Amino acid sequence: MAFYVQKYGGTSVGSLERINAVANKVLNYKKSGHDLIVVVSAMSGETNRLIGLANGITPDPSERELDVLLSTGEQITIALLTMALQKLGAKARSYTGAQVHILTDAAHSKARILDIDGERAKRDLADGFIVVVAGFQGVDKLGNITTLGRGGSDTTAVALAAALKADECQIFTDVDGVYTTDPRVVSDARRLERITFEEMLEMASLGSKVLQIRAVEFAGKYNVPLRVVSSFEESEGTLITYEEDGMEQALISGIAFNRDEAKLTILGVPDQPGVAYRILGPIGEANIEVDMIIQNVGADATTDFTFTVHRNDYQKALSLLQSTAKELGAREILGDDKIVKVSIVGVGMRSHAGIASTMFKTLAGEGINIRMISTSEIKISVVVDEKYLELAVRALHTAFELEKSSENVEKTKH
Amino acid sequence: MAFYVQKYGGTSVGSLERINAVANKVLNYKKSGHDLIVVVSAMSGETNRLIGLANGITPDPSERELDVLLSTGEQITIALLTMALQKLGAKARSYTGAQVHILTDAAHSKARILDIDGERAKRDLADGFIVVVAGFQGVDKLGNITTLGRGGSDTTAVALAAALKADECQIFTDVDGVYTTDPRVVSDARRLERITFEEMLEMASLGSKVLQIRAVEFAGKYNVPLRVVSSFEESEGTLITYEEDGMEQALISGIAFNRDEAKLTILGVPDQPGVAYRILGPIGEANIEVDMIIQNVGADATTDFTFTVHRNDYQKALSLLQSTAKELGAREILGDDKIVKVSIVGVGMRSHAGIASTMFKTLAGEGINIRMISTSEIKISVVVDEKYLELAVRALHTAFELEKSSENVEKTKH
Repeated sequence: MAFYVQKYGGTSVGSLERINAVANKVLNYKKSGHDLIVVVSAMSGETNRLIGLANGITPDPSERELDVLLSTGEQITIALLTMALQKLGAKARSYTGAQVHILTDAAHSKARILDIDGERAKRDLADGFIVVVAGFQGVDKLGNITTLGRGGSDTTAVALAAALKADECQIFTDVDGVYTTDPRVVSDARRLERITFEEMLEMASLGSKVLQIRAVEFAGKYNVPLRVVSSFEESEGTLITYEEDGMEQALISGIAFNRDEAKLTILGVPDQPGVAYRILGPIGEANIEVDMIIQNVGADATTDFTFTVHRNDYQKALSLLQSTAKELGAREILGDDKIVKVSIVGVGMRSHAGIASTMFKTLAGEGINIRMISTSEIKISVVVDEKYLELAVRALHTAFELEKSSENVEKTKH
Repeated sequence: MAFYVQKYGGTSVGSLERINAVANKVLNYKKSGHDLIVVVSAMSGETNRLIGLANGITPDPSERELDVLLSTGEQITIALLTMALQKLGAKARSYTGAQVHILTDAAHSKARILDIDGERAKRDLADGFIVVVAGFQGVDKLGNITTLGRGGSDTTAVALAAALKADECQIFTDVDGVYTTDPRVVSDARRLERITFEEMLEMASLGSKVLQIRAVEFAGKYNVPLRVVSSFEESEGTLITYEEDGMEQALISGIAFNRDEAKLTILGVPDQPGVAYRILGPIGEANIEVDMIIQNVGADATTDFTFTVHRNDYQKALSLLQSTAKELGAREILGDDKIVKVSIVGVGMRSHAGIASTMFKTLAGEGINIRMISTSEIKISVVVDEKYLELAVRALHTAFELEKSSENVEKTKH
């Protein structure tokens, strides 16, 4: 008998049939004796319909009013899901973000949750109600409606779970969990039963678009166990949780990759303080996001500087860099927009040596040239030519035996 | 430089073009130096769309959740209208019923307004904002969303005007005012410049469906001058206000009629206490609304009892009455569902004799037999055969010279 906060996304509540299906699923949990808060998104398509209305009035609506408009999307879903639950005989009650006092800052369209007053929800749970809450929305201290930005319903669910000390926050979505890598690339990619918050953050930011990074950060910060599970299939999904002592830990949990990278290198710039800022300053001002940054030690008084950007920003970054190169008296600029990034992620890296060399040996064995290397505590990323993406991911997946469950891997390795 | 509360109904904001048109209209008032609160309904069709969604889940949704659902309709309009005003360079801000603290009782789907805390709206007005408020909705003391029932946006506007002491509450609609009678029946029916609250109540309840009765009652109770004016044409509309001493007053302001009446008579019932209740009790319990009730003094120890109902309820009322007749030992039951009610309405009646005889003489002159008569302080209603409706209304319109303005009438009569 546990207390779960469940979140159902836009696709899961995308039609009246699906809302009825969610109601059935929720009621089964309730009948098993669990307490439930259910967070829902707008029905898929509804948010775009509302944005279309706004754009029909003005291409540049004020963020305050856009939030007033968009927050109706989830309000419709909470009412419909609650009706569906009541039709099945359940006690249920809906709440908007304002009604359940999801207090946020005043940053319309990207507000951050500051506090939740869960008293009313707690009373309802004690009285046997299923509590249905609108995701994605809150209210600032002046009572203005705010939204958390797209995907913010995940954050709402995690915040409610943290505030009300739920046993687990369950994110129901159209995938059945987090995989060792993209199953479209590696056919025997395996669903992970468990992954740490840190690993999930590295996986998410590297392109495994399962959960909002903010929601994972939030869950990690408040130690809310987070489970990704399918709305449509029966499966345990993947539990994202903190690292436990004695927990059987795979060396590598997964392989992430990012197809849309481009790299730029400026050669022979003066090796002196402030150079990195002079190179990247104009890039940042142009709102271009920089991913990897590598500065090589130069042989003379100059150095070479390389960074990667999204492929869409490549031309813009290149022309900015050409001006900078002139100012700095750099020798040459090199660029390549046919590259990809492949990363292995795993907290096991911390306690096991030789992971990097296994990775490099594997890639070398397939004749794949590594263009850049970057490492963090639990991640090693390499940049390779675009054409090697699938080959690299498959080779690494096999080398680290990710198709086997972690217990088997442990047995094999030791 | 006045302070107006303006209300635009669903047709007036029925499309993005119309919302832009309303924004222009509102801005013109603002530019003339007026302070403005604008109350809006859901875009026409939206409420039905939402009800359709609810009915797709269950034919019998809970009223609490239906209110959560339906209140999104006006919330969408306030956001869009505010965006349209901002696009035109105006300072504007939207509020839901909850945000502007329209406190109601907890009677979902037909809540009554108890109180309004207008402080925030007042501050906004002082700061030069146009305040846009969602009609039709409020919040009970527990924070649950309530709705006032269909047409409740008129009531919202009047309540705001009363709470904030507006100079006038202006209801923009698809008619340009209140007419002496239905222009489809009498081609020279004339728009009234002014009418009293009492007259308007008698006109409205008798079938001139211009304004919600509740809104007129509310306006009368709090002495809020109420103006009905066209959203689409330039016109002064009709001002509904209290009766002023020395105000030039027409004898009769208008002629109302109701096509869908049916009458039932029970003859020879014992003339003793409790009979009316025994006759009408079962009718009321069957949710049949009774309009006129007439009891004639009988010659012996029995009496005759007649009442009218909506034509749709005629058969049901008749069969109920047959059981009652048996119990009471009544002599006979008569019924007629081919009748209509025609009423003349005017506060002038109070101070002028002979109005009734003019009415009866006029009808007699046309050979129209009067079946029933009922009178109030400012109204005389007669029931006549259905086929005489148009003839009766036209004859009375001419007899009371309603095609002329009130000043001319006064001159003619005295």
